[in-house]
Amino acid sequence: MPETITLYTAKVCPYAHRVELALEEAGAPYNAYQIDLQNKPQWYAPKVNPASKVPAVAYGGPATSPESPAPESTKIAESLVLLEFVADLYPNSHLLPKDPVLRAKARFFIDAVGTKLNPKFFAFVMRGEAGGAEGLLQGIEEIQKLLPEEGFAVGKDYTIADASVTPFLARMEVSLKHDFGAFDAGEGPKVYETLQSDPKFGRFRKYLSDCKARPSFQKTFDEAYLLETYKKRYGELRAQKKKND
Amino acid sequence: MPETITLYTAKVCPYAHRVELALEEAGAPYNAYQIDLQNKPQWYAPKVNPASKVPAVAYGGPATSPESPAPESTKIAESLVLLEFVADLYPNSHLLPKDPVLRAKARFFIDAVGTKLNPKFFAFVMRGEAGGAEGLLQGIEEIQKLLPEEGFAVGKDYTIADASVTPFLARMEVSLKHDFGAFDAGEGPKVYETLQSDPKFGRFRKYLSDCKARPSFQKTFDEAYLLETYKKRYGELRAQKKKND
Ligand SMILES: N[C@@H](CCC(=O)N[C@@H](CS)C(=O)NCC(=O)O)C(=O)O
Ligand SMILES: N[C@@H](CCC(=O)N[C@@H](CS)C(=O)NCC(=O)O)C(=O)O
Repeated sequence: MPETITLYTAKVCPYAHRVELALEEAGAPYNAYQIDLQNKPQWYAPKVNPASKVPAVAYGGPATSPESPAPESTKIAESLVLLEFVADLYPNSHLLPKDPVLRAKARFFIDAVGTKLNPKFFAFVMRGEAGGAEGLLQGIEEIQKLLPEEGFAVGKDYTIADASVTPFLARMEVSLKHDFGAFDAGEGPKVYETLQSDPKFGRFRKYLSDCKARPSFQKTFDEAYLLETYKKRYGELRAQKKKND
Repeated sequence: MPETITLYTAKVCPYAHRVELALEEAGAPYNAYQIDLQNKPQWYAPKVNPASKVPAVAYGGPATSPESPAPESTKIAESLVLLEFVADLYPNSHLLPKDPVLRAKARFFIDAVGTKLNPKFFAFVMRGEAGGAEGLLQGIEEIQKLLPEEGFAVGKDYTIADASVTPFLARMEVSLKHDFGAFDAGEGPKVYETLQSDPKFGRFRKYLSDCKARPSFQKTFDEAYLLETYKKRYGELRAQKKKND
């Protein structure tokens, strides 16, 4: 029986969202505690995660309030470490297949998300780099190439491979559709349109819609909150840019 | 019973070395096939690893020569994916503990090697960046901080956490000691001296010497070969630099 899990998270954070998805998919009981990243509580770094980032988990130890986690509990950080941790705690969930080859496929997919997709996502959406739109579309193709004809990243079950990418894809979609990003005004919806209609991205579209249909996603994704946050973040950025032009 | 494993490797490559260490530690039977990275065989990318890098593994399928791996065998790339794969194939080896918390510690250590140590190693030894010496020493301190008082990264057993870092530390030592690197002449031995004698690095010294004492390391590390390779690589680089000065 796994011990108690307190997850320190933030709605805006795709890394933290990965872990929420895994916990939900495993049917794990856990307490989610929201960290305000703009105004982090003083106890967070010393008591939970010296890197001062979400996600982090306090595992086990005597029951306490999340604000003063027991020194006896184990503190674990890093989203990918936590995905594996949840899969290890719940070996009979579908979070990782039992077959070593399929497990390797899941991990190869996770690696590709981190090395081939996410850098392109950051370059375009968060930094508005030149050529970012093409780069992002290429990154999506790289991921699409790894998908089997149907189902999820390594088969019919939703695994930690899918949990590693869903939060980024969902945030990307919101950014593009509503034109909230560091890219030039109008660029987001153009890329969104390509992803929506180009036959080349058919498999990707189906995959993303399958991921979004999961109850785990429905329960953990707060689109309205993200819209508010992005509007503020990128609205100010664009006003700033305009002033500098 | 695991199926046949062909490992595509190269003596110079620290990523490939990780996987050799894991296979040796697991006592796994495997065929190692050397890829000449300066002159890669034409069949390598199409038949084994589209990314055209080592390490890669061909797993299972009918017996064939490494030069024409069977299409039925599974091809797996990426050193960290392969470390987990070997641990999954040999669950009763000591490559990963059974306890989810200790497994998380091993993976957190691996993450730190990739994000806190290796970038510093590349910056100093391979690119000779300004401030590289201090950066590297800091990176080593970050790793040292994670080590328990004695033994290996997560306890008395040598795990994939140790296999992930040993190849980089061993190559670093050769580079520094013999002054082969993209840094300025004389810089290597200075850092080497610090690591050898500064009491601050005592725990690190013991750790590295424990890792190097493993039979798995003895069997897979060819120092003479590396020395030759580095001499050529960095000798030419320095002659070039001098000419440009
Ligand atoms: N490599 C980390 C990255 C986590 C991360 O960057 N989290 C961000 C929020 S999305 C954070 O907490 N940043 C610190 C801050 O905003 O102060 C992981 O995979 O967990
Ligand atoms: N991320 C890869 C990196 C592997 C890698 O960069 N290997 C180098 C040799 S150390 C390589 O094969 N490079 C291709 C080449 O030299 O052509 C891993 O962890 O396996």
